[in-house]
Amino acid sequence: MVKVGIVGGTGYTGVELLRLLAGHPQVGVSVITSRSEAGRPVADLFPNLRGHFDIAYSAPDAKTLAACDLVFFATPNGTAMKLVPGLLDAGVKVIDLAADFRLREVTVWEKWYAMQHACPDLLEEAVYGLPEVNREAITKARLVANPGCYPTAATLGFLPLIESGVIDIDNLIADCKSGVSGAGRGASAPMLMGEVGESFKAYAVPGHRHLPEIRQNLSECAGEPVGLTFVPHLLPMIRGIHATLYAQLNEEADLQALFEQRYAAEPFVDVLPPGSHPETRSVRGVNQCRIAVHRPQGWDGVVVLSVIDNLVKGAAGQAVQNMNLMMGLEETAGLGAVALLP
Amino acid sequence: MVKVGIVGGTGYTGVELLRLLAGHPQVGVSVITSRSEAGRPVADLFPNLRGHFDIAYSAPDAKTLAACDLVFFATPNGTAMKLVPGLLDAGVKVIDLAADFRLREVTVWEKWYAMQHACPDLLEEAVYGLPEVNREAITKARLVANPGCYPTAATLGFLPLIESGVIDIDNLIADCKSGVSGAGRGASAPMLMGEVGESFKAYAVPGHRHLPEIRQNLSECAGEPVGLTFVPHLLPMIRGIHATLYAQLNEEADLQALFEQRYAAEPFVDVLPPGSHPETRSVRGVNQCRIAVHRPQGWDGVVVLSVIDNLVKGAAGQAVQNMNLMMGLEETAGLGAVALLP
Amino acid sequence: MVKVGIVGGTGYTGVELLRLLAGHPQVGVSVITSRSEAGRPVADLFPNLRGHFDIAYSAPDAKTLAACDLVFFATPNGTAMKLVPGLLDAGVKVIDLAADFRLREVTVWEKWYAMQHACPDLLEEAVYGLPEVNREAITKARLVANPGCYPTAATLGFLPLIESGVIDIDNLIADCKSGVSGAGRGASAPMLMGEVGESFKAYAVPGHRHLPEIRQNLSECAGEPVGLTFVPHLLPMIRGIHATLYAQLNEEADLQALFEQRYAAEPFVDVLPPGSHPETRSVRGVNQCRIAVHRPQGWDGVVVLSVIDNLVKGAAGQAVQNMNLMMGLEETAGLGAVALLP
Amino acid sequence: MVKVGIVGGTGYTGVELLRLLAGHPQVGVSVITSRSEAGRPVADLFPNLRGHFDIAYSAPDAKTLAACDLVFFATPNGTAMKLVPGLLDAGVKVIDLAADFRLREVTVWEKWYAMQHACPDLLEEAVYGLPEVNREAITKARLVANPGCYPTAATLGFLPLIESGVIDIDNLIADCKSGVSGAGRGASAPMLMGEVGESFKAYAVPGHRHLPEIRQNLSECAGEPVGLTFVPHLLPMIRGIHATLYAQLNEEADLQALFEQRYAAEPFVDVLPPGSHPETRSVRGVNQCRIAVHRPQGWDGVVVLSVIDNLVKGAAGQAVQNMNLMMGLEETAGLGAVALLP
Repeated sequence: MVKVGIVGGTGYTGVELLRLLAGHPQVGVSVITSRSEAGRPVADLFPNLRGHFDIAYSAPDAKTLAACDLVFFATPNGTAMKLVPGLLDAGVKVIDLAADFRLREVTVWEKWYAMQHACPDLLEEAVYGLPEVNREAITKARLVANPGCYPTAATLGFLPLIESGVIDIDNLIADCKSGVSGAGRGASAPMLMGEVGESFKAYAVPGHRHLPEIRQNLSECAGEPVGLTFVPHLLPMIRGIHATLYAQLNEEADLQALFEQRYAAEPFVDVLPPGSHPETRSVRGVNQCRIAVHRPQGWDGVVVLSVIDNLVKGAAGQAVQNMNLMMGLEETAGLGAVALLP
Repeated sequence: MVKVGIVGGTGYTGVELLRLLAGHPQVGVSVITSRSEAGRPVADLFPNLRGHFDIAYSAPDAKTLAACDLVFFATPNGTAMKLVPGLLDAGVKVIDLAADFRLREVTVWEKWYAMQHACPDLLEEAVYGLPEVNREAITKARLVANPGCYPTAATLGFLPLIESGVIDIDNLIADCKSGVSGAGRGASAPMLMGEVGESFKAYAVPGHRHLPEIRQNLSECAGEPVGLTFVPHLLPMIRGIHATLYAQLNEEADLQALFEQRYAAEPFVDVLPPGSHPETRSVRGVNQCRIAVHRPQGWDGVVVLSVIDNLVKGAAGQAVQNMNLMMGLEETAGLGAVALLP
Repeated sequence: MVKVGIVGGTGYTGVELLRLLAGHPQVGVSVITSRSEAGRPVADLFPNLRGHFDIAYSAPDAKTLAACDLVFFATPNGTAMKLVPGLLDAGVKVIDLAADFRLREVTVWEKWYAMQHACPDLLEEAVYGLPEVNREAITKARLVANPGCYPTAATLGFLPLIESGVIDIDNLIADCKSGVSGAGRGASAPMLMGEVGESFKAYAVPGHRHLPEIRQNLSECAGEPVGLTFVPHLLPMIRGIHATLYAQLNEEADLQALFEQRYAAEPFVDVLPPGSHPETRSVRGVNQCRIAVHRPQGWDGVVVLSVIDNLVKGAAGQAVQNMNLMMGLEETAGLGAVALLP
Repeated sequence: MVKVGIVGGTGYTGVELLRLLAGHPQVGVSVITSRSEAGRPVADLFPNLRGHFDIAYSAPDAKTLAACDLVFFATPNGTAMKLVPGLLDAGVKVIDLAADFRLREVTVWEKWYAMQHACPDLLEEAVYGLPEVNREAITKARLVANPGCYPTAATLGFLPLIESGVIDIDNLIADCKSGVSGAGRGASAPMLMGEVGESFKAYAVPGHRHLPEIRQNLSECAGEPVGLTFVPHLLPMIRGIHATLYAQLNEEADLQALFEQRYAAEPFVDVLPPGSHPETRSVRGVNQCRIAVHRPQGWDGVVVLSVIDNLVKGAAGQAVQNMNLMMGLEETAGLGAVALLP
């Protein structure tokens, strides 16, 4: 059994990690930390875990964490970078579900996250945990930066187009919509149901932290900087991200074949038949990205529709997928459930 | 492997059966019928099943069904009763998720369902599939009537109180609330999101078909007829039933202990600690009933809060639980998932 | 023009008061206070008010408030009681939308609200602002305690039954359901959409602050103490309360006629035809209570269904109705809108 | 008093027309037709209208309609075109809320609506009822084609940019999201709450009927054909449209000033301050379009956010605005309400 620890397990990615790990045949959760909830059983905070976990939150303790094979950080941005060097030194592998190790350039990171990075030297070593791009590197990594939710949906949707060189990369548009769980479980007036229920809006149009992350992904893929506009929106529902992606074609191509071939061997990317419109509910609770590609009439462009569950393929599920790769387990272990529909 | 068939698999209980059976280690679905969708892959109608089921709907065929070990009916009321006698004769076990075999008295059944019963002689043989009451009989049954969703939540909530004789059974009140998936997947103007979203109402106050079913359950438990008022309401959400149950106490009793002892050995009934308020989301997607019992101040009464997922413990999950019992499998096989929260 | 002030206008009852007063032909809002938002235009905080109000929040100032004809308190419990004596001395009429003056007995108030009352002597003078009961007294009042949302729905539903003496008052049950706006606009983790969306639960079963208020109302009506169980529930929607009320009949009566006669002259109580099931959306945004009365089959009981918009007839709309009475205006002035459906 | 008739008043645009006209001081509804509901009081079908309308549906009758000053058609596409010629001959003015007269070119109309047009000669006379573009012509019109919901939101958002010539019109993108009420009140499985609640998807990406309408509007504005990609999406909520519009700039311009000046005199278009993100709830129930314009960092492009209530400024409210213009009333009469928030 792989012994894992979770640092900061009181948020939505924390409970989702526990839900997924409860069904994993080769993994045991040996510690889950929370300063504020130390001593409280996890099943008391999250009643869906009753009968599945007897464990209680404990205050973070370096020694206990160092006894794990792998530690997940499900903490706010800026926390993992303080503890990761010590854990790596102790021979523990780490997956950070926050943003501390996602950006290559420390100056870019410090600008967008408005703090000083505690271990910039690790930015180079950290592997960006998108298995569809970096599978080999993840397998060998000590430290994996688990991708953001928007970046996962947008990157997987643009990838085949950029890799194949069929689109103009100077003017990419990612119009993305997310359920409210993406904003976390912290007390907040703007995220009250009375504020966000039965309404819809864009936010952070001047610049969202996932913009440099998506841009980095697409630019690495293109081998040169891309031009990208990213507009996130808030959906009046709990789980799910839908990315609607726009680009102009440079040349004719069989786009459906392009996508199907690119993802033929991927267990967690599903290219839908021509003419499809993926629904976010079709991936609710599961580690899947479903994608459809369209060429709307009368335009030399392409529209890609890409959906994930922001808490699964966009967070905890992708983290489990990365853990499987890092620990030499079957990549799909513990990730075989069917989405909850309706 | 147990070979099962599903008759009428295009509704919500059908897709939910498929979702649960996809994760069952000892069961294979060999046929699923639908007249209207014959030839269409199930994963085409329900995209969450993509990658999990290659099977397509077929027109109902007696011979194919007779080759199954067990057949589920996920059909409208009045369909199963026409086909069940033939299947039983062929040695096939049957679980009806509709209401054809739920009521003992044919005259009561025919009044509430407004049709003539096709095989009233089987009403006596049929076992009411609530394992917490009829486990032994289910184990030996050829034909199981899977309980209704409201009756499951209400019966499990009242059971310990009636069995122990501590309440007045002449004046029981079940104020129940259900998500919209209870109304099924058929085209309907009153169930449009534009009609039932962001609103709440009671319905069928003069009399709902689950009233005689709950009354039958509680009367059998009490050994005499009970007086019951049942008011169902429609919630602006998809899954979940919450039963709020009221009764007056005849005598003092340790109600918490009463409930805990009654359900101590039950794998799918969870009695919460004193003072709890179960949320429907805590059982979303899983075969659980969570119950809390209260004695509000200043009254000689008791309030029981009982929640289930109407499609799981209230339908398809309970059917799988019954199948496990009927086929000699582990009762909990395929039913170990954690509820989806948030 | 009547000059009104609003103390504490940053919550949902505050913005709802502004919305309703914007359409009132004889009233002008001359001041609206908020310590935290002083200087900020109200239309900046609440964009629906853009183009309707140029006013900005100001810090509370006794002199400015004393220049008003009437002041509404839309503050947390315990605030109004500190300022009301001064305003009354200055000749200003007051309507408190919080709970400071709702309960007659100071000991009961202090027990439920867990603080000392600042002006217990005013509890006797304060008129409980339910016009269907206290219209005459409201007309002459200096100080009106605007009723709570649950108490309004429950009291109006029970009233005809108690006044006419046809029910047993020892065992009344009020199973009530509210939209989330009832919990206010303060930052709160439990009220996040991620927590309360797509789920349903009871809360405060051991005792909610509206219990003594409803009990007081019904006991005053009965002329003796009533026995009442009150269970509130939280609906995954924004606006609306549905009270489902249960009682046992002492004698036969034409209940439909009873209700129709009781409310024949009431502009804001609508008794629906026999067999109806009122929807909360039918009163969304308007100062109406819609009621249906049922005698479910096979029981000597009565079920009353009563719906209001918790922010209108349950708060700001009733406050405007009270203001109209107190200021000698037409009772229905500014309250003539049609509910928003769908 | 202006006498108006409504043909086909059982859908959401019908009830919304009635809601708005109930508050209009100079208009009376003298007839509302429905074949299926003839004889039924409108307040029986739509309980929000109780106490506001005593009128019942009647079967359509040419003579009764001809006695009106103006007739609204709130019918499915293809109905109005059969009755309009007769009404115009009788001297009745007409506003069609459906699509029969929205497109100039009969061949385009017949392609997208898949039927033969009954009176193509009237396509030229019909005035497209977007007052912000055609106010003068509407004032003199006998026949007004009320714009579609998506076209209203998208056109008002692009208008200042195209009129001023600052953007490249060959590559416009309109990523639009609508609440479910846009799909109407007809029985439909795909629009059940169980299907569309808690989920999000694009639809009709290959081509939606509002595409040629938006293209026509923008091309007329530009004086030449524009290149447009339009992707509609379905939101899990009832009311509201959010258009997110993308274009590339040809030249530098003060976009905020451009929008403010263009709409300075418009009573129903509200340009928000720089940096704003309009919410659909800010226009719920009211005849407003709220717009924000952004220049996201690092791109020579512009993003416009435009919100309306699809049933008001996107349908019935705009129809009342057009009626006011056609009948010589104050343009804002009956349209002064404040949006319902929360």
